[in-house]
Order: sequence, then C-alpha cells, then structure tokens
Amino acid sequence: MTDFNYDRIKSDLNRDEILNRMHDTLSDFRYTHCLRVEKVCRGLAAEYDGDVERAGLAGLLHDYAKERSDQEFIDVIKNKNLDPELLKYNNAIWHGIVGAEIIKDELGIYDEDVLNAVRRHTVGATKMTQVDKCVFVGDFIEPQRDFPGIKEARKYAEKSLDAAVAFELKHSVQHLVTKNRAIYPATFVSYNYWIKKGEL
Amino acid sequence: MTDFNYDRIKSDLNRDEILNRMHDTLSDFRYTHCLRVEKVCRGLAAEYDGDVERAGLAGLLHDYAKERSDQEFIDVIKNKNLDPELLKYNNAIWHGIVGAEIIKDELGIYDEDVLNAVRRHTVGATKMTQVDKCVFVGDFIEPQRDFPGIKEARKYAEKSLDAAVAFELKHSVQHLVTKNRAIYPATFVSYNYWIKKGEL
Repeated sequence: MTDFNYDRIKSDLNRDEILNRMHDTLSDFRYTHCLRVEKVCRGLAAEYDGDVERAGLAGLLHDYAKERSDQEFIDVIKNKNLDPELLKYNNAIWHGIVGAEIIKDELGIYDEDVLNAVRRHTVGATKMTQVDKCVFVGDFIEPQRDFPGIKEARKYAEKSLDAAVAFELKHSVQHLVTKNRAIYPATFVSYNYWIKKGEL
Repeated sequence: MTDFNYDRIKSDLNRDEILNRMHDTLSDFRYTHCLRVEKVCRGLAAEYDGDVERAGLAGLLHDYAKERSDQEFIDVIKNKNLDPELLKYNNAIWHGIVGAEIIKDELGIYDEDVLNAVRRHTVGATKMTQVDKCVFVGDFIEPQRDFPGIKEARKYAEKSLDAAVAFELKHSVQHLVTKNRAIYPATFVSYNYWIKKGEL
C-alpha cells in the first residue's frame, strides 16, 4: 500500500483534505483521472529517481482548476497581475499556469516544485525538472488514456523520461496541426528544444 | 505564346541573360524546376489578379542560389551584415533570404517585390503580397511535384490562394514533425497566422 508523506512539502492541508476539496469541485471523471495521474507520477518518479511525493502531489493537483469558468481565470490573471499575454489564451493554457495560483490560494500549497509542474503540464518547457517531466508524461499515459499513439507513448515512458516528453510534444503538435489549430508559442519552443535532443 | 515584359522591373539583365546565368550555375534538374515554377506563378498571378511579370520573375529566380555552398551563404551573411541569427540555420532558409542578396548582387535585380517573394518562398510570412503567395504556392504545386497531399494542394490553389498558402504551411509543419525535425521560428509564426484565417 502506498504511504503518502508530504512532510517536506509546504501545504496547509493534508492529502485527505485536498481530496475532499477536489471531490467537491471536480466532476467524477476528472477527479478519478487526477487520482490515476497521481499514481502514475509516483511510479515514474520512483523509476527515474525523482521526488515521489512532489511528483505525486503535482500529478494529483495538475487539473485542479480545469473546470473553472473562463471568467474566474481572467479575474485571477488581472487580480494577481499575471502576464497580460495570458488573456489571449484559453482554458487549455490557463488551467496549468493560472491553476497553479488557484492551488496556492485555495489549498495553501506554496511548494514551487509542485506548482511549476502544474504550470508546465500542458505545454512543457525547455528546462524541466524530474517532477515536471513525471507530471507531463503521467498525465499523457495514465491507464485510461486511449488514443492513436498511446502504446508508443507508454513504450517511450519505459525507455526514457526525456524520450517520452519529446514524443508527447511531437504528438501534441501533430494533433493541433491535424485539427487546423494554432500551435501555442510555448508548445513550439518546448517542441523544438526536446526534438533537437534526438531521443526519438 | 507567353510574352515576357520586364520593363517595369529594375534589372540589369533581360530574361535570356538571366536564363544563361541560371543554366551555368544550376543543375538541369533545378533549372527546369525554376522554369516550371515561373510558368505556374504567371498562371496564378493571372488568375488571382496579381502582377504576372513580377510573380513570373520571382518564380524563375526563387531557387537561384539553392546550390551554393554553405560557406558562400555564411560569407554573404557576414559581409552584408545580415541578421547574425541567420548563421544558426542552413541552406533551407539561406537560399531564400540570403539568396535574394546574391540575386541582387549577381543579376542587378533590385525590385523588392521580386526579392521579397524569393526571401519568403520557403517559410512564408504573415504579411504576404500577391506575388509572395504566387511564388510560395507555385513552388509547391509545379507539375513535376509529387508527394502525398499534392492533389489537395492543387485543389486549394484553384479555390483560393490564401487557402493554398495555409495548406502548404500545414503540410510543411506536418512534414517537419513527422521527421522529428525542429520547426523554424518563421514557419511557426506563418503557420499560426494562416491557420487562424480559417481557410482550410
């Protein structure tokens, strides 16, 4: 059985209290997704010598704010004086970057390693910590995920965390382009960085 | 039979003199490609109410410098004080942007509408003139081109020049990503701009 020990992580709430909050504010679908991602992140961190507790907590919380209204995100961006560029985007970007602020405010979690992994879980980054990578990949390959390429994604995740990050970014860009959608600037920067590492 | 009339275009050489230079400095394969692109560009410009002579001349010249050595491009970038950022790239980018300088210097063609279309033919741009678009698309769909998607590209070119530009950028990004290659920043900017216009 898994033991959770958040002693090293600055948080006003313990895991059960966090779960209660999440259960109250998320659909069942997303709540159970978050629990699955938590578990995968802990596994990845254990396998790749990362911080199991931080990776797990960030995995649990990565979609904490995903079901908030656009207006709530806009209010947070304005009230907390976040980069006004963010106003041009939408939930897909907001629930990570702005979501980290909501997590800080509502749950009293101030650990920047955890918050950064939440911020970066949608578009990645050039500098990613082991915790960032675990959450980025864990969200993509959790057991209920099913899409063309999922087998390859899981295979990469067993081989190398960096390869799995590169594959996920490649898959994201391909998905956006196939759907005739714009590529987020941050996704473009992450994609170029990770594809150049030559892990695929 | 096509009449060529470059009277409005500032150039030290006439078309026959340009053809002689190209024949001397390009492989047969590329020389005939340039002639085919010239023809397609003239047709597109005629159809879409563009400048037939400028589109044709830019189409003819678009690959003028493509077979030069990397060292020659690097020397031009340094000697002409072009953006040092260019040194990070390769022939794919150089033969357009740096190629325009070589065309200016060797052929005495100073018409910026023609030169810009050469500069932009590989990666496109957000602001593209009708001449730019004709060359960008003409290079992609000339009769000898054969790749998955060519039929769709030609269909778009019959429907709308803007749609053909968007499709070509989408195709370019897909090609790069499938090959695990980085996306040029300019290609990314062009892609996002044209895809958002919603022509596809």
